Amino acid sequence: MEKKGPERIDHIGIAVYSIEDALSFYTEQLHLKLVHIENVPSQGVKVAFLEIGESKIELLEPLSEKSPISTFLRKRGEGIHHVALGVKNIQSRIEDLQNNGVKMIHDHPVEGAGGAKVAFLHPTSTKGVLYEFCEKS
Amino acid sequence: MEKKGPERIDHIGIAVYSIEDALSFYTEQLHLKLVHIENVPSQGVKVAFLEIGESKIELLEPLSEKSPISTFLRKRGEGIHHVALGVKNIQSRIEDLQNNGVKMIHDHPVEGAGGAKVAFLHPTSTKGVLYEFCEKS
Repeated sequence: MEKKGPERIDHIGIAVYSIEDALSFYTEQLHLKLVHIENVPSQGVKVAFLEIGESKIELLEPLSEKSPISTFLRKRGEGIHHVALGVKNIQSRIEDLQNNGVKMIHDHPVEGAGGAKVAFLHPTSTKGVLYEFCEKS
Repeated sequence: MEKKGPERIDHIGIAVYSIEDALSFYTEQLHLKLVHIENVPSQGVKVAFLEIGESKIELLEPLSEKSPISTFLRKRGEGIHHVALGVKNIQSRIEDLQNNGVKMIHDHPVEGAGGAKVAFLHPTSTKGVLYEFCEKS
């Protein structure tokens, strides 16, 4: 059976110091619609989603110094953090990749924004890109 | 009149040392379809496009040491280079941004892959993200 790729780019995650400071560029200059703001304490972030076609742009602001986004901002400054690919059957997709030698950050899905099941691939297996699988319920 | 945002994420540009080396992760592990490979000498790159929903992933390999992608690879290594937003009326969108004080890399569209009209926004105006406007003919 031919295996299917992810269905769409679910979202692009962008690290910012402050959602409040970053938002006006997206809403007033790009004219994108803000659809949702949420705290995701399990990931140490506050997130804001802006709609664009079948995808979203996710602004990520750290909730504390211990947040992975704080670490990213210290190392790289503001910018693109990850790309989330919309998938179904996330667990079997993780297992397929692991069976093929692809390194995962998450062996099993964890809860992401909006209650989605998410799992990150390790950038050493993806030529430097932090990809996330994201399955919406 | 309410202004409309870009219609979709047209593509995500990813800098790689070698398309040949990077491609199997996308086609064999993610099961994405390779749709097109092209040299874009005006940008100093060879590009490969993989289809994902209404968007594409664009792998960018430098054609020479003088390519902007060579500079990026030396500074940052492989990884996400830019996000292209699919727009109409690219020239008037550029002028609107400039009238609002947003800095552009291109005042006027230049020719990109597939004959698209493209223009890059300056990352100092976008909180560190290299955004491209992309208008397909």
